[in-house]
Parts: sequence; structure tokens; C-alpha cells
Amino acid sequence: MLSAEDNALLTATSRGTAMGDLLRRFWVPFLLSDEVPKPDCPPIRTRLMNEALVAFRDTSGRVGLLAERCAHRRASLFFGRNEENGLRCIYHGWKYDVDGQCVDMPSEPATSNYRDKVRQTSYPTVEAGGVVWAYLGPAEQTPAMPDFSWLHLPLSHVHVTKRLERTNWVQGLEGGIDSAHSNFLHATVDGFRRTPAWLERAQAATDLRARYHALDRSPVFLPEDTDYGLRVGARRDIGEGTHYWRFTHWMMPFYNLFKQGSAKPGVNSQGIAWTPIDDHSCWTIVVTWNDERPLSGEDIEAAEDFAGPALPDSFLPVRNMENDYMIDRELQVNGTFSGIPGTQAQDMAVQESMGSIVARFEEHLGTSDAAIIRMRRRLIRQARALADGADAPLASRDGSVYRVRFGETLVQEGEELDAAARERLCTPA
Amino acid sequence: MLSAEDNALLTATSRGTAMGDLLRRFWVPFLLSDEVPKPDCPPIRTRLMNEALVAFRDTSGRVGLLAERCAHRRASLFFGRNEENGLRCIYHGWKYDVDGQCVDMPSEPATSNYRDKVRQTSYPTVEAGGVVWAYLGPAEQTPAMPDFSWLHLPLSHVHVTKRLERTNWVQGLEGGIDSAHSNFLHATVDGFRRTPAWLERAQAATDLRARYHALDRSPVFLPEDTDYGLRVGARRDIGEGTHYWRFTHWMMPFYNLFKQGSAKPGVNSQGIAWTPIDDHSCWTIVVTWNDERPLSGEDIEAAEDFAGPALPDSFLPVRNMENDYMIDRELQVNGTFSGIPGTQAQDMAVQESMGSIVARFEEHLGTSDAAIIRMRRRLIRQARALADGADAPLASRDGSVYRVRFGETLVQEGEELDAAARERLCTPA
Amino acid sequence: MLSAEDNALLTATSRGTAMGDLLRRFWVPFLLSDEVPKPDCPPIRTRLMNEALVAFRDTSGRVGLLAERCAHRRASLFFGRNEENGLRCIYHGWKYDVDGQCVDMPSEPATSNYRDKVRQTSYPTVEAGGVVWAYLGPAEQTPAMPDFSWLHLPLSHVHVTKRLERTNWVQGLEGGIDSAHSNFLHATVDGFRRTPAWLERAQAATDLRARYHALDRSPVFLPEDTDYGLRVGARRDIGEGTHYWRFTHWMMPFYNLFKQGSAKPGVNSQGIAWTPIDDHSCWTIVVTWNDERPLSGEDIEAAEDFAGPALPDSFLPVRNMENDYMIDRELQVNGTFSGIPGTQAQDMAVQESMGSIVARFEEHLGTSDAAIIRMRRRLIRQARALADGADAPLASRDGSVYRVRFGETLVQEGEELDAAARERLCTPA
Repeated sequence: MLSAEDNALLTATSRGTAMGDLLRRFWVPFLLSDEVPKPDCPPIRTRLMNEALVAFRDTSGRVGLLAERCAHRRASLFFGRNEENGLRCIYHGWKYDVDGQCVDMPSEPATSNYRDKVRQTSYPTVEAGGVVWAYLGPAEQTPAMPDFSWLHLPLSHVHVTKRLERTNWVQGLEGGIDSAHSNFLHATVDGFRRTPAWLERAQAATDLRARYHALDRSPVFLPEDTDYGLRVGARRDIGEGTHYWRFTHWMMPFYNLFKQGSAKPGVNSQGIAWTPIDDHSCWTIVVTWNDERPLSGEDIEAAEDFAGPALPDSFLPVRNMENDYMIDRELQVNGTFSGIPGTQAQDMAVQESMGSIVARFEEHLGTSDAAIIRMRRRLIRQARALADGADAPLASRDGSVYRVRFGETLVQEGEELDAAARERLCTPA
Repeated sequence: MLSAEDNALLTATSRGTAMGDLLRRFWVPFLLSDEVPKPDCPPIRTRLMNEALVAFRDTSGRVGLLAERCAHRRASLFFGRNEENGLRCIYHGWKYDVDGQCVDMPSEPATSNYRDKVRQTSYPTVEAGGVVWAYLGPAEQTPAMPDFSWLHLPLSHVHVTKRLERTNWVQGLEGGIDSAHSNFLHATVDGFRRTPAWLERAQAATDLRARYHALDRSPVFLPEDTDYGLRVGARRDIGEGTHYWRFTHWMMPFYNLFKQGSAKPGVNSQGIAWTPIDDHSCWTIVVTWNDERPLSGEDIEAAEDFAGPALPDSFLPVRNMENDYMIDRELQVNGTFSGIPGTQAQDMAVQESMGSIVARFEEHLGTSDAAIIRMRRRLIRQARALADGADAPLASRDGSVYRVRFGETLVQEGEELDAAARERLCTPA
Repeated sequence: MLSAEDNALLTATSRGTAMGDLLRRFWVPFLLSDEVPKPDCPPIRTRLMNEALVAFRDTSGRVGLLAERCAHRRASLFFGRNEENGLRCIYHGWKYDVDGQCVDMPSEPATSNYRDKVRQTSYPTVEAGGVVWAYLGPAEQTPAMPDFSWLHLPLSHVHVTKRLERTNWVQGLEGGIDSAHSNFLHATVDGFRRTPAWLERAQAATDLRARYHALDRSPVFLPEDTDYGLRVGARRDIGEGTHYWRFTHWMMPFYNLFKQGSAKPGVNSQGIAWTPIDDHSCWTIVVTWNDERPLSGEDIEAAEDFAGPALPDSFLPVRNMENDYMIDRELQVNGTFSGIPGTQAQDMAVQESMGSIVARFEEHLGTSDAAIIRMRRRLIRQARALADGADAPLASRDGSVYRVRFGETLVQEGEELDAAARERLCTPA
């Protein structure tokens, strides 16, 4: 439970708010490279932390990110002409380069130097892993990029999906951190009931998670502060004096790493970014990668199934709030616990159904919410500190802190799994 | 005419407002039994007096009414699993019974007693006459059910329609009380003009209303305060020294009884409840019944014609504000006065066209509005009294005051129709 | 650039605001005569300066304009019966004539004189040139009609189009005054690039504008205050010591005269009114006329092409913000500068894309905006003066000041084009 005041602080994304300013000290992924597929292609309207923007790829291949409305008379540059290393407003022909500099102003006398004085608000971008990242903070504080392994891989090893979620970004992130729900929301009815047939299938699995995850639905959570955010251990009692430990991560400000990872050579990894569009919506960007080999067609299909189909020329899921996520009440009775087909659709259903900004002051949190509680406190504390003049968090300055991996292990009763061991488990080879 | 301040008081339905709290001292009908047709069927999203709710029928057949969002992390229980005498949230599997008690909390350790401490906001319900009623007020003040005769009848004698009206409930109610408009809004053009052919047909009718109602379009209204609300007499001068008296009723807080009733054995009765959904919309629930015999197919058809068709899987009328109630301007010239087909569509057209909360401070009321004026004053007075610490009105505590009937009679000049006679006329045998 | 405060003053249209009251001192065109094609036809819902209204043509052919909601209980008179020189409310049959006088009140006793005391808010109208004009200001200050030549012509010489623009009226007007944008927004790519083929075609044109307009894209603007508003000269350097001068006009409060006009016998004229619907939308009413002859089918087709098609039974353009004005990115590359087909669609695209009230405090104006700056100042000054008790502007009282025409001429270096000459050029013969 959070006070209404803290809830407002936690969820505000605009420039000048404490959290909005904290978010602006990080690079944020927002655009698929494919959305601006080639030089001089049409510009794209977008929105980040409540700022209306337009993105375009210039003749040299650089991605520009400008305030949507022209500095002159505020016509939308979305309608602009993307030509010769600049975006030209169709109203009076003013043209800006990727740095926002006005480079042509044909409606003013040729002798005028007004052009040199006019700058369109612009933000630097970086392109990596098939994704474009932007930085909306002060130029003199430009942060390091998070050093994710998938940013160094060939694009064949990486698959990215992007969906529109109509909730505040923290709400999405909380869903990502909350590993307690997978035994319910994402379960089958048989799994929830642990029928004999289901148990037999589970025990035959080679994957530890498949084998043990559902055996204990009320694990002990151990969230630990780290430089990058939180390492979240979940300890499950799987019987016969054995504990199954599983470690996922929250990385500042809005990343989850939740699946496999380099702990299991040859198995795909998965993580999510919840990028704030405005206070009431975010991009859910899911990255699937394999550090060792290209993704197969099957891998990509699985990643797309996870995200679920989107409407044509849109990132809005086909299953969405307007159609109650196509919940199938028959399926819900004996098929899947939720009755909603698709993992991400299930997540969206519960997260969006809370309202776009959940009333955290009306919650009744349990022990399973330990990581969420700790993350909220950390975010609020860091936003307040920054507003009070402190430095940005280390994660904003040192991308190397992001070099972590998913971890899991079995521990017998009496064995120790101390902090050093936990950290080792989550450190890539 | 009402001050803007009184208008705001009259129309506010939220908990903590004077009128919202008065409304919460009565049982309110809101759900057709058919909407939750059988045990463990899918839950229904609903809304009463600005509270988001979910209704479900449990394994034992009881109808539960819970706050829509789960006490835990506020996911919508609309997506919940309706199973084994409780509604289970699909997020973490918390389960609540019809009393709101958390009866299962599988995401917490088995040893935890947290489950016993968590209650979901819940409201008691009663099912009668094919309708589910809820009580949203303080438990220690649970009111009596209004003792309508149709609540005691076999369901074969009763037919209920439910439509969404996009106005504040008082606005609907005022339309129901306002018996002056039927000579215009619901008239034919011939009836309005009283053409010879129309007059001849009227005089041949056995029904008093059909014979006399339109002969005098500016009746004298006599609204009288009663324990249940108002008895509204309308005296029409029908010529040759004869008065036609007709009595309808407003019953606290939002019922109209306006048609036939047990005064005429064998003839159907009709009444309306205007149940507040929020400040800007209400359910128009029309009950047609016959105290003596099952309704015929024709009776039911007439009741459905009165309500007009609704969109599929919806209570929104096919004729609605978006399509100007399909007004037919040709029909309006020489057919019906309004040009809008259907009684209830005609009512909705005028009521919704005022805006969802009519600016009562800009009205110019006439003598025909006497009952409306009196009802507003009564509602405001009682809401203020309750807020000041007085008891709820008697009608909230004693359901027997609702035992009234529609009445009508002819009175010759010189004859008396004193208060006692008027009351007798409206008392069921 | 304008302060946020001045921007709010400039764009507020409601009664009681400084600008709303200034606007209410002029006749405003708002309805095509065709919308109420014949006596006793169905009434039309409309809205002017944020007032909800209903217009109807009575039995005598007069156009009435009443407040939308009935004085009695505020049902919409849009559903009213238009009969025998009055509009009758369908709720209780109250009937009003074009002057707003209640002329029948059948729900009240025949002996009542209440009818005589009730007046529906009504506004006088004038019908001219196929257009209906309304006056919403104080009766004792009824203004003169602007003496446009087209108001005196046979209807065969005039063609009027009306479109819904979802911006504040000033924003539309600024687009109309801004003659600098036509070399960009309305240009072809070849014209913008001045390719040899394009130059050759331009030089072959007999029309001065076609020949010279695009040769100098950064003309010198000379806006001059006049009794009617502004005379806006644009001087283009077309080489060899020659200047091409072109004069357009802003006429109080929201008219542009921008094309041809009586300076060129036989050639059509064109002007626009931007009539405020509310703060966020306006009617764009374009009048095409020929002072000397009936318009041909070709003329009318050109006028309709200029406006672009509207949706059926609507004034909303087919190309609109919801579909990004059907911008064609292929066309934009080498065809037309904007990629949007249609002159008025191009204007709407840029004007609406600024948001319904542009943030004028975030602009960077250039020398090409001189006329816009001067118009804003003039409007604000006059609104403030009126609020401070000054008389309405002369243009409100003397329609003859509107007798101006479009003007253009060539001036050789060294020749004078003094104020008297400029005025002569813009005075009809």
C-alpha cells in the first residue's frame, strides 16, 4: 500500500516531475528499427513521457527524434517531407536536421540569419539490437547505454515485439516483477489443481522451472538491492528437503529479465522494457535472444505467440480491453485458469483492468508482493534524491552494471546459498 | 426552478453525498435474474451509484455483489473464475464468497492467517420478481423491501425490461411522474388535433383513460405527500360538469406506478424503477404484471414494444441519441406527434436531450409541473435531514407503505372527492 | 509569439468573454440556405460561439434561430415540430415563433397568461447569397451587414461550400491570411524546386499570380490597418528590377478575400469566412462568385475540388485528422509538396495538426508572419476596448467599409506604389 501522494509521484512521467526527471536520466527504447526501415522513409508519430514527438531516418541513416510540432507555427512535422538529411515542414518549408538545427528556411529572405537561430527540440538516439533508444535528459548528463548482451549480438539472434499497453509504465513493470502470478494467471486449470496427469508430465520435464515452479505456489521472496535495481530470489519448497531457487531481475528504470538467460547455454533468454508513453500508457517491448545461435523460425513464432497478434499497422493487441481480451468462459472452466488465450494478453487483462493508474492506496499486499514493495520504495527514493540535487543512480552512468543473467538452482536442506553465491549465480560467465 | 446548488445535491449519487447516502438506505433493483442465469455462470460487470461492481451467482444459487477490483492488487474480478461458492481472481487466485470474505489465498503460505483478515467490499442482495436487488448502505440499517404485489406473484405473471438511459436518475423519474406530457409526446397528430374521427374513436373506448385523457390537456394536478412519497391526482374537465380523476404515484426513492393496477381487475399494471448507475446514467426497469393471471404472449409483446428493442447483448436501445432516436420527420407531420416510434424511445429522446444533468436553474415551470416540484423538494429535504442525523424515511423501514394502486374515477360537479376518498381509491382491496 | 493570457483572450468565444462579446457585435454566416430548404422543413441543430442552437424555416419562409433547449423543461427543440409559423416542443407542446415568443402552451390552462411571459432565447437572422447569417449580440446594437458584392448577385453567380474545421476560428483565419504558405503547402514538388520545365510553364501563363507568385518565396509583407481590418500587400522580386505586388484582405472579424476579384473582369473571386462554432471548431465557409456572369459547371467543380468531398449528410471532410488527411507518401516524394490531395485538406492538415488551440506562446514567428501578428494585436486591442466600454469597431456599424477587392500589379524599380495607389488598387470600380 502506498499513499495517494506517493502513488502520484511514482507514476508521473512529464518533464519537471520527480519521476519524469529520473526517467529522463536513462536511455529509453521506443522504436523498432523496422518502423523507419530506410533512409528518407516517412516519419513516425510517437510519444515519450508525455512529449509529442516525430521520429525519422535521415538520408545518412541516422534516426532523428524531434518535438512533433514545428518551431515556427506548430504544424505537425508528422506530415513533413523527409528529404536530404532533414525533415521539412509542409507548411512553410522549414527544414530541420536530426540535431534539430534549422537548415533551411525558404519563407524568409535569403539574407536573413534567422534560420541559424531556430532550433527544433530534438533528442539524441542510439540504434542497437533492432531497437532505437532515445535520451530526453540534459545533454551534459548523457547516460551510458545499459550493457545488455543482446545489444552486441547479430540481429539474427534477437527478436523484438512491441505492444501498446494502456496503463502507466510502473503498473506494467510490477506485473513483470511479480513472479508469483505465473502459477495462477498463466496456469492451466489442471496445473492449478495439480492433477495426477499434470504432476506426471511436470516431473518428466528436463527444465527446472517446468518441473518445480508450480509445486509451491507461495514461494518465499528475497528481493535484494543491487546497483542495477533488484535481484529477486524466489525459494520454492519442492519436497524432500529440497529448495528450488530462481532469480529474476529488475533493472533501472523499467527492465525485467525473467527467463532462462545465459545460465542455460542454448536456451533463449527473454526480457521486457516498459517504456512510458505518457502517464496512462506504455510500450511493452519484449526482447527474445539467444547468445549463442540465430533464432529459429520456431523461436520467433513462440515469441510472437507470447506477445499475441496486433491489429494491422498498429501495436494495439487484437485481444484488448474493448473486447475483454476475448475471454473464453468455456475455456476458463477446464482449460486455462484465465480463459484468455496468450501470455501477454493475460498480463494486459489484469494490469489494464486495474485502471490506467491503479489506486495503490487501496491494495492489500501479501508476502508475495515483497519485490514490488521494494521496487516502489527504491524508485521513489531515487526520484526524490535526484529532485533534491543528488546524482543520478549509478545505473544511469555505468552500463556495465546491467551485465546479469537469470539464475536458478536446487539447494538441499542445510546447504547455504549466501549473498556471494546468489550473486555468482546471476553473473554471466 | 432549482438553484444550481440544490440541483447538484439532488443529482449526486456517490457515497458520502447527501442524496447518495439517502439512496443507500433503500434496496435498489439492478440486475435481471436472467443476467446470471445459473449457478457458477460468468460474472457480470455492473455499476451502482458510481461504484464499480461485479455480480455473480454462486454454486448455491445466491447472487453475490462485490466491488469490481480485487482487494489484493485491484485486478478486475469480472475476469474471475466463478467456482465452488466463490469468485476467484485470475491474477493470484484469491477467492471471495458472496459475503466478501476471502476464503482462499493460495499465493500466501498455508500457515498465514492473512486470508481471514481480508474482505472484499460486498453488498447483500435479494432476488424477487425476476429481479436482483442490492443494498449499499450501512449493515445495521438494512431496510425493508418495498412490498410490491408483483414480488409475491409467480414469475409467469410478471415481465421486466431493462434499458440504459444516459441521464441522471432524477431526470428519468421526473419524466415518469410528469403525466402532463402524454397528451403531447405520446400522442398521435390526430389525437393532438382532436379530429372528429379521433374523437369518435375515443368516445367508443371502454377504458376511461382512452376515453377522457386527451380531452383536457391542461389538467389540474394535486400532488399529496404520503409515507411512500407522493400520490399525484390529475383532474380533467371532460365536459358536462364531469371531472375525470386519475391517480399515479411516486414511491421513494425512484419508483413510478402509473398504469391500471389492481383498480381494474384483469388489466395489467405497470411501474418503473429508475436505478442510478452513476450521476449521468440510470437503468430504466419497467415491470409489467397482472395480479390475477399469467401474462399472455400479447401482453409481453406489448411490454417489449413499450421498451423498444435493445442492441444485441446490451441494454442500450436501438433508438438512441447517436441516431437521434431514428426520428421520422415524415411520420411526425401527420402520424405521431413526436415522429419517434416507441413510447420509451420518446421518453428517452426528450430526457436525454436535456443533457445528462438538466440545468434545472434554467427552467420555466408551469402548473403541470406541480408534482415534479414537490418531489424535488421532498427528496432534497429528506437527504438534508439524513445528513443532519435524522432517521431514514419511514419508507426505508416499513415496506408495507408501498401497498398502493393506480386509481381513477369520474366525479360529477358538486360531488366531493376528499382526502379519505382519494386514499381509498389508491388502496388495494 | 503571444502570451498564454493573450492567447486565451484571443480564442475564447463564449458570451461574456472579451473576444466572444466582440464577435457578437457582427453578423455571422453559419447556415446554407439549402440546409433548411423549404418552409416547415425539419429543424437543424447548430452551435455558434459555444451556444447550442436550433435553426428552422417557418411557414412564411423566415429562418428562426433559437436556443436549442426549450425554456420549459429543456428538452431539445431539435426534435420539435416545425408547424404554422413556429417550432413546437414535442414534450409538452409549447410553441415558439422565430422571435422566440411562446405562442402556444397547451399544457397550461387556457385562462393562463403564462404563455405571454415565456420567451425562448432567439437571435435575428438575415438570408443573403444562399447563406443565413445570425446576430447574437445586444438588440439595440444590431450591426450593419457587410456589404459584400456577392450578396447582391443572383444566386447563379455564387457558389458556397461549408466544411467543419476542428480548430479555433482564429487558427483557420491565420491560415487564410498567411499567403506565404502557398508556395510550399499548396505547391508541386517541381514548383518548389523550380525545375526548368516548371519555369517554362509558369512564364507562359497569362495570369500574373501563376507567372510570378512562386518566383520569390520570401516576399516582403506590408500589412496596413484599414476600417475593415487589414490590407495585406506582398511584394515579390521577380527579377530585372520588377516587383509583383499582390493585395489580399482580412475583414473583421473573420473574413479573407484572397483571390482574383473584380480587379480581373470575368475571373472568379473567392473569399472565406471562419465562423466560430465553439472554442475548438469553426465552419470554413468558402464563397466563390463572379460579379459579371453565372458560374459554369466547371467553376462549381473547381470550387468543390478546392473544398474537397465531405462525408454523406455531414460537413466533415472525407480527408480528415482521423485518416491523416489520406496523405500519400509516394505522391509527396515527387508529386505535390504535401502529399495531401486538395487545397483545403492541405490547409486543414496543418491547422488542425497544431491542436485545436495552438500554443502561440511556443511559436517562432518570421517576417512572413507580419500580417498575422498585426491581426492578432488588432483583434485583442478591439476586444479589450469593447470590454472597457468603447464602441464596437466601425466595421460593425458601417457595412460599406467591406467594399474592397483583391488587387495586384507590377511595379518597376524606382516607381512609387504609395498608400493612395494601394488603396485605389483595392477599390472596386
